[in-house]
Amino acid sequence: MSKAASRIADSSLADEGRQRLEWTRTRMPILRSLKKTLEEERPFDEMKIAICLHVEPKTAVWLEALRAGGAEIFITGSPGTTDDATAAFLAEMSGVNVFAKREETFDDHIEYARSILEFDPDLISDNGADLHSLIHSDFKHLKTKLIGATEETTSGGYRLREEIESDSFPTIVINDSRAKRIIENRYGVGQSVVDSIMRSTNALIGGLRAAVIGYGYCGRGVALCLKNLGARVTVVDIDPLTRLDALLEGFNVAEKAEAISGADLVITVTGRDNTLQTEDFERLSDGAIVANAGHFEFEIDVDGLRNQARSESRLSEDIEKFSLASSKEIFLLGKGRPVNLSAGEGNPIEVMDLGLALQTLSFRFLVENGSSLRNGPQNVPDEVERMVSELAFEAWK
Amino acid sequence: MSKAASRIADSSLADEGRQRLEWTRTRMPILRSLKKTLEEERPFDEMKIAICLHVEPKTAVWLEALRAGGAEIFITGSPGTTDDATAAFLAEMSGVNVFAKREETFDDHIEYARSILEFDPDLISDNGADLHSLIHSDFKHLKTKLIGATEETTSGGYRLREEIESDSFPTIVINDSRAKRIIENRYGVGQSVVDSIMRSTNALIGGLRAAVIGYGYCGRGVALCLKNLGARVTVVDIDPLTRLDALLEGFNVAEKAEAISGADLVITVTGRDNTLQTEDFERLSDGAIVANAGHFEFEIDVDGLRNQARSESRLSEDIEKFSLASSKEIFLLGKGRPVNLSAGEGNPIEVMDLGLALQTLSFRFLVENGSSLRNGPQNVPDEVERMVSELAFEAWK
Amino acid sequence: MSKAASRIADSSLADEGRQRLEWTRTRMPILRSLKKTLEEERPFDEMKIAICLHVEPKTAVWLEALRAGGAEIFITGSPGTTDDATAAFLAEMSGVNVFAKREETFDDHIEYARSILEFDPDLISDNGADLHSLIHSDFKHLKTKLIGATEETTSGGYRLREEIESDSFPTIVINDSRAKRIIENRYGVGQSVVDSIMRSTNALIGGLRAAVIGYGYCGRGVALCLKNLGARVTVVDIDPLTRLDALLEGFNVAEKAEAISGADLVITVTGRDNTLQTEDFERLSDGAIVANAGHFEFEIDVDGLRNQARSESRLSEDIEKFSLASSKEIFLLGKGRPVNLSAGEGNPIEVMDLGLALQTLSFRFLVENGSSLRNGPQNVPDEVERMVSELAFEAWK
Amino acid sequence: MSKAASRIADSSLADEGRQRLEWTRTRMPILRSLKKTLEEERPFDEMKIAICLHVEPKTAVWLEALRAGGAEIFITGSPGTTDDATAAFLAEMSGVNVFAKREETFDDHIEYARSILEFDPDLISDNGADLHSLIHSDFKHLKTKLIGATEETTSGGYRLREEIESDSFPTIVINDSRAKRIIENRYGVGQSVVDSIMRSTNALIGGLRAAVIGYGYCGRGVALCLKNLGARVTVVDIDPLTRLDALLEGFNVAEKAEAISGADLVITVTGRDNTLQTEDFERLSDGAIVANAGHFEFEIDVDGLRNQARSESRLSEDIEKFSLASSKEIFLLGKGRPVNLSAGEGNPIEVMDLGLALQTLSFRFLVENGSSLRNGPQNVPDEVERMVSELAFEAWK
Repeated sequence: MSKAASRIADSSLADEGRQRLEWTRTRMPILRSLKKTLEEERPFDEMKIAICLHVEPKTAVWLEALRAGGAEIFITGSPGTTDDATAAFLAEMSGVNVFAKREETFDDHIEYARSILEFDPDLISDNGADLHSLIHSDFKHLKTKLIGATEETTSGGYRLREEIESDSFPTIVINDSRAKRIIENRYGVGQSVVDSIMRSTNALIGGLRAAVIGYGYCGRGVALCLKNLGARVTVVDIDPLTRLDALLEGFNVAEKAEAISGADLVITVTGRDNTLQTEDFERLSDGAIVANAGHFEFEIDVDGLRNQARSESRLSEDIEKFSLASSKEIFLLGKGRPVNLSAGEGNPIEVMDLGLALQTLSFRFLVENGSSLRNGPQNVPDEVERMVSELAFEAWK
Repeated sequence: MSKAASRIADSSLADEGRQRLEWTRTRMPILRSLKKTLEEERPFDEMKIAICLHVEPKTAVWLEALRAGGAEIFITGSPGTTDDATAAFLAEMSGVNVFAKREETFDDHIEYARSILEFDPDLISDNGADLHSLIHSDFKHLKTKLIGATEETTSGGYRLREEIESDSFPTIVINDSRAKRIIENRYGVGQSVVDSIMRSTNALIGGLRAAVIGYGYCGRGVALCLKNLGARVTVVDIDPLTRLDALLEGFNVAEKAEAISGADLVITVTGRDNTLQTEDFERLSDGAIVANAGHFEFEIDVDGLRNQARSESRLSEDIEKFSLASSKEIFLLGKGRPVNLSAGEGNPIEVMDLGLALQTLSFRFLVENGSSLRNGPQNVPDEVERMVSELAFEAWK
Repeated sequence: MSKAASRIADSSLADEGRQRLEWTRTRMPILRSLKKTLEEERPFDEMKIAICLHVEPKTAVWLEALRAGGAEIFITGSPGTTDDATAAFLAEMSGVNVFAKREETFDDHIEYARSILEFDPDLISDNGADLHSLIHSDFKHLKTKLIGATEETTSGGYRLREEIESDSFPTIVINDSRAKRIIENRYGVGQSVVDSIMRSTNALIGGLRAAVIGYGYCGRGVALCLKNLGARVTVVDIDPLTRLDALLEGFNVAEKAEAISGADLVITVTGRDNTLQTEDFERLSDGAIVANAGHFEFEIDVDGLRNQARSESRLSEDIEKFSLASSKEIFLLGKGRPVNLSAGEGNPIEVMDLGLALQTLSFRFLVENGSSLRNGPQNVPDEVERMVSELAFEAWK
Repeated sequence: MSKAASRIADSSLADEGRQRLEWTRTRMPILRSLKKTLEEERPFDEMKIAICLHVEPKTAVWLEALRAGGAEIFITGSPGTTDDATAAFLAEMSGVNVFAKREETFDDHIEYARSILEFDPDLISDNGADLHSLIHSDFKHLKTKLIGATEETTSGGYRLREEIESDSFPTIVINDSRAKRIIENRYGVGQSVVDSIMRSTNALIGGLRAAVIGYGYCGRGVALCLKNLGARVTVVDIDPLTRLDALLEGFNVAEKAEAISGADLVITVTGRDNTLQTEDFERLSDGAIVANAGHFEFEIDVDGLRNQARSESRLSEDIEKFSLASSKEIFLLGKGRPVNLSAGEGNPIEVMDLGLALQTLSFRFLVENGSSLRNGPQNVPDEVERMVSELAFEAWK
């Protein structure tokens, strides 16, 4: 296996990347344990894996495990999320080929994605279905060559089903596992949203009047974390039984208009566009902090807010002030993007450890059972989910 | 509508029954609201409803609502659960016919059940499928006459599907509604189990080491209530993902043998027979309190415990002491039956208000849609569940 | 030591008393441990102890420990609180002399108190300062004979200081210890108040809107227990810093008038008379449940409420209904007396175990240091408090 | 009033400082309200106030209020904590004179302190008693001229009493107020410590095994925040009653050696030097994270750890890795300094709003009552504490 040329920003950052990885590695015991197994089993010997995923330390720990299993790896990232030091470190690793720079353009991104597919991979790991899209347009020979694929995101899973209609090889959609959802949504998102609010505002949570709009798994996580730190939380949800559930848990429950007009902090987490829009902004109380914790950045109609505001200004990297016609001022965190990512560091490392372990064992499952699986997007196999849950329990108990 | 003869224990208790009802009525706002609606709509005019359900104040409040809707009612209870004062009060109500005594035998029970079916009801409400069983054996003409039925319990639903194979008319299984499960299991059972333990033992919950075996909706409710009152709770569950969920919630999670050996209080809530059996009892710590919070009384093998014990004695109505061979003493609450019923008063009134509202609107749904429904056991219709959730939210918000 | 004649209701109840004691004994590990120590040390050999305290199982376990330490005991109770079976059991014990009947009058009570003082005790344990009062009026010779005394209650301590001006021998006031206050008020009262509300009303706590008036140690305990079971709690307190404290803990905080008008449940725990009085009752919401958790029964002006009500009726042993002029109905629990006692069983057994251990070691301290102590009411000695805290920790850890 | 020359790093940063202030100002409603009052009253007209306090946005908001009250201000900061942009902004304000640069040396610091004293202030606000120390050595004429002073810190208060023996004018020690302690310690420190741990480690708190050593107000705050986010917390404390208190709250309680050997995260908050020292480090579990939340940086013997370690390396700005002889690795956050400051942003803004309001009203109190006060260090006057509590309640309720 000869080393292909990587495309990275600055190879001199490799040492910095190595150091950065060290901490992350200590918090990823599930991958650590899997790495040992893979070293013995070598399930990916002679195989090429093409990966599209954020190039940062957690991903790097995963690649170390895949390498231990014998794979040759070709990875690209997403525009703006690459950690150049991690990229430099990875580019030095034997058997890993990196095509990612923090400052890459969207065109670069597509070029890099094409580059990794040109190596004729046996397995791919996708993130938002970009690789799948290319395969179905320009790399059609891979449709029969590929053993299978994984897709990290829910929205990627949606594209596979509704747009691309991918049906030539099996694709396991990682986010559709119960393990990922329960652990990530209730605990990971709950903690990281509250963490990002604290670090971007330095505001006292005790006594704060918060409105959480949407009480699914994520919303419940956010609402409980806030309540448990002393906030007085009002929940908004459109489903009557969900409202009952929140009420008996001890939350106030109200209609959106009432909830937001009395809140110091308003968080959207509904999965729906325009959860906060024109008519809502003037109902907010003067000085309200607004953030989105949902997956997509359209829950708050930020463009509408910008149009509506008499003036706006940036008070810090994560806080923008909007002055409304009524002379109320409201403060938007993290540009309305998922606040735990835009104003924080995303899910706790342990949650990614679990998610990447699902990726790893899904790959092994594809290798072992690929030919007998139906083609197209599908859930994480029960046995994979079970195995990862058991490993996580052993690591965390 | 002429008044049929009731069979009750003592008609002189009617006034006592009237008084007892008053409190219960104040805590049942959903039925209060439905009663007004039914008074206007009179959906049950000219109809006879045969009911098998515990004859106690909450049921009486329900009957008042059904009467307001125009129904003539024939009710029988269960051996040992009848409140004779309530029975006497109901027997005085116009249009209500009661066949129930606290001291009735099982033969009496069957006789009474036959009696109410002999009135040729249009609708029935069953509790454990006893009425269904009789219809399918001895009252076959009702199979075509009946508009439909409801069944209160999960176990009754099971009998309908597996044993009786009831398929001649629609039967709505109340406990299979999400509303009933979430509200009753997480909140109703959680609270009432802890309530019954406090009232039967007068023990301090703060600092108590408790083991909760089974972390389904009920188990989670029990575990959270105990934790929130200061107990140090260890959760046992066989599902690896459930174990993770409990762990991240902040519980200790362990295997059964380890969990029970360090606990002051052990609660079973698994839905499985013999969750605690011979080999477990000697693992309990000396002085441990043991109770069952599951639906069936076989989760603790009480007969096995009795055989195994060197001696046993009753210390109070709700507490039995067993001295084991090892000279350990363990204390069983409520005979191993569901402790919130056997050593408490069962679910909070509000939870029954919601459950009986589901019954009421299921009856109305059957009257309005019965002929178009498929026959056999089925879930509570979505629109009924939604309507009851909305009424509950209005009442409790 | 010859056995004096006891005055009890029915000696045939002794076996029932023995059985009742068994459970209580298992929950009192601190006294169990002290009993062993006392058996070896015999600090009370040849001494007579006169005790005025509720004659019920917890007290009986204490007497067993004192007996083990060598004391001859003379005990009387309080009118209405004596458990006749416990009295009968104790009367059979060697070295214990009982003067207590459930149905005793106040005159009987005084006669019995005199009786036990006539035995010329070396130590006394008082409960509300009745024995002290008699000593300072009619048994003056005991003022010099007595080694010392204990007084259980805060109000007894007050009487000693302000009314009786007791200053001839040292009296240790048990309730003035930090250990008793923290453990009893925050945890014991918190739990037992919520327990008594659940058992007397069978109401769902989840979602309930509760107002807790008074946020001292007891009020905080009650408010936290309610919140932790899902109630939405508003706190009322007159101290601005205390209000801040409650706010940051996550409670709503409001003025009394506002708080009670929106509550389903109102609990007083201020230590002040007429916390709820004429002008407050009409502010309550229709159907409100009202209870007092404070030490004295005058926090709710029940006489005022009675006068003000258009009608009243008793709905159960613990619930009275009052119909106000506005046609609102409100429900009073446990007659306005401390609800954890009047509608429950008082503090958890473990809390009494700790309190009676303070009594026990205070006696030993008096025996060992009595002559060097200053006379008059005083706090529990630090070393006693420390020792009991350590024993409690060992027992509960 | 003519503008004196400021000593700052870079006056071109003034605009950046202005912007930065905007957010902070919105979270300081108590000072906002006081500013209005001071504008009307002008209590500090014609007065000079010399201040030693961290030059950063929260302090700047305070200076705006003092200016509104008429004061001319001379401020210096502490080495390393100055925000140069804030300094530049302040230097542009009329009536404010700034002597502070981020990169100043300790000698600069003393020079600057001297500079502000040379303006002959009427009032001073000290931070660690440095100004007091200079006054008592080199500016003795101020001892009679000064109306009075405030001192922000507990340790400064200690120096005033024990070292400097300051007794020529009254000094109000802000941290000795109940308001500051309760709000800051329980809520401010609790939140900010957990916040700083999350942001520096990105570790999942749910399920984490944490040991909190020290259960005073701060320790309790930290322990509760961790528990409420799902950690399994063991508390260590040397006082037996405090241990009981933690136990009944639901914490595990253990000896230090046991607690730290089973923990993933160990936090010291005892106020005592060498809480973690040589013999403790090897007891930590492999991979343990260690942080200090106490006021002083000597609770963890970092020098000892450095000597003991086989090797050490910095993994990020806030995380250092130490490899012990046993080959265990442990991770130290924020160099062992108070972690909420060294790896976070310190107390939430609202907590400083309250603290600086105490400063402000203490100044006014000194102006109004200075001559009648006793000299030397003293507590915040009750009326000041009460007034600030009421303002805070109005702002946050």
